Amino acid sequence: MSAGERELIKRIRESVGTPGRTTLVGIGDDAAVFEPVPGLGLITCDAFVEGVHFRRDFATFREIGTKCMIANISDIAAMGGFPTRAVVSLCIPAHITENDISAIYDGLLDACRRFSFDIVGGDIVSSPRDLVISITLMGAARRDRVVTRSGAVVGDAIMITGRIGGAEAGLRALTEGLPQEDAVLKTVRRHLRPIPRVAEAQAFLDVATPHAMIDISDGLGSELWHLADESGVGVRIEASRIPIDESAITVAEKIGCSALDLAMGSGEEFELVVTIPRSEMSRTVEHMAAVTGTTATYIGDVVDAKEGCSIVGSDGSREPLERTGYEHLGGVGKGGDEE
Amino acid sequence: MSAGERELIKRIRESVGTPGRTTLVGIGDDAAVFEPVPGLGLITCDAFVEGVHFRRDFATFREIGTKCMIANISDIAAMGGFPTRAVVSLCIPAHITENDISAIYDGLLDACRRFSFDIVGGDIVSSPRDLVISITLMGAARRDRVVTRSGAVVGDAIMITGRIGGAEAGLRALTEGLPQEDAVLKTVRRHLRPIPRVAEAQAFLDVATPHAMIDISDGLGSELWHLADESGVGVRIEASRIPIDESAITVAEKIGCSALDLAMGSGEEFELVVTIPRSEMSRTVEHMAAVTGTTATYIGDVVDAKEGCSIVGSDGSREPLERTGYEHLGGVGKGGDEE
Repeated sequence: MSAGERELIKRIRESVGTPGRTTLVGIGDDAAVFEPVPGLGLITCDAFVEGVHFRRDFATFREIGTKCMIANISDIAAMGGFPTRAVVSLCIPAHITENDISAIYDGLLDACRRFSFDIVGGDIVSSPRDLVISITLMGAARRDRVVTRSGAVVGDAIMITGRIGGAEAGLRALTEGLPQEDAVLKTVRRHLRPIPRVAEAQAFLDVATPHAMIDISDGLGSELWHLADESGVGVRIEASRIPIDESAITVAEKIGCSALDLAMGSGEEFELVVTIPRSEMSRTVEHMAAVTGTTATYIGDVVDAKEGCSIVGSDGSREPLERTGYEHLGGVGKGGDEE
Repeated sequence: MSAGERELIKRIRESVGTPGRTTLVGIGDDAAVFEPVPGLGLITCDAFVEGVHFRRDFATFREIGTKCMIANISDIAAMGGFPTRAVVSLCIPAHITENDISAIYDGLLDACRRFSFDIVGGDIVSSPRDLVISITLMGAARRDRVVTRSGAVVGDAIMITGRIGGAEAGLRALTEGLPQEDAVLKTVRRHLRPIPRVAEAQAFLDVATPHAMIDISDGLGSELWHLADESGVGVRIEASRIPIDESAITVAEKIGCSALDLAMGSGEEFELVVTIPRSEMSRTVEHMAAVTGTTATYIGDVVDAKEGCSIVGSDGSREPLERTGYEHLGGVGKGGDEE
């Protein structure tokens, strides 16, 4: 290890700070040591590659770091849990400076602080060409509050949090270099700084009995297929009910595409799709608004597996839902999610 | 996700199999869910990059997968723990086939089976150019049996398991294309198929009170510096006591380099360096041999920080230990370990 590398790691250890009291050994040993959190343990991991998942001409390193961590927080939220601690591996090509690495860490730590958990370990290695940020996030959930994507029941109402399409609209606006008007700026912000729905997942659990939950990281169409496949059911959603972000509609007009298509394929938005008994719909909508300020919208129903996954248009026509998800950065590469 | 990607993930889920009963949700959801293991939790991560940490002309994908997992198991062993579950992120450039990915997984799973733990989650993403295998391994340790690298005490004896130099000799033999004689083949095997010292770490704990423990992944010289820095001590080792692998000595002769230099810089050997009270030395050596068949060798002493880290030659001359560690694949790149 060179003097420069040692200095960098010292800098990172300082910015990461002293971990909370449940972490007995943090960065700096062969492994981190911690007191297990009460309840069930959760673990998820995601890798983010420059040119596939992020572009440095679209976002600062700090924004990139935050967004990578938030994608993992969203996965923990979608199980009904809270994040507890993270480890981070960075693969660094020669053109990345130590200040760049510090900026990535600053971004990662912004997300950690917002959700009160620590980075407890990591690895920094060189790579010949590609910059890779690989995060593993642990979490915890109460034993009776874990929700998988495989429990959807025929007859369930399908609910979605917030409004979708903004993240994809923002990415398209950046890619096509749209003039930075208000609506455009809003969608760009949505793309660069998504919000994981930790509190919203808990709100579902507080007043309803969610049967299945998944976060939208690869687009609503794709996630509904995942949920249906894993639950052994079909889904039928109504196009007119899908809550599309208003700024996304404006951007869709500007670039001349269908706002619905844009919304259905919008990835990394991190809204939640949740199936609950129909009888719990109205109290869920009310509680969600009251506690989180976020909308919960009914978009369709869980149906028999034989029906497959379909979307009903406003004219009553029914089309199969497209399986293909979000292609990160519009086709530079694809992110296939094993989890 | 394309049909091919879905098929691949199905194949991986099948080869990973049903996880043990403490894993409630494995691959296939937003996060894995598990019962926390009694005792303290451990977590470590490492990223491995083609051309930096491994070469496909030197090893099969299966061997590469196994070795990457073993590097992580070694980190858990060096804390006094046992591996419990892993998550794996793969960044896959276009030239890697689905069979290659399956072979990597087969290798990862070989290591998992040998140490009785599961892969419970992962992520497969595309990368523009570099192949990256990123592993996070969790472990568990009894509360009274965690050993850090920061507890070495002045006066401790420094012990090392097994014999070193073989891994580096094997890598050099491959790099220089040495004819595949017996000694060469032995070192190549040592390079490609290292063994993590899980049982040996426990043997230390059974009969001694290890104050500090670290695994050799970046070379003995470098690891002794880490241990000294973190413990706030110095170390003085004796060159003549260092147990150098016999085949490594043969290879060193063939390539015309010093066997000692080769051994001191030999990385990814995964032997353990442990400091214990001097009074516990002989019973440790006996117990280690009896229980594991592995040697434990005294190589020097923990000294005051003022003395720094030094190596005493057979002529009594004393030189500072070099800080620089192992350069993976002989300088193609460097692996700086944050942990």
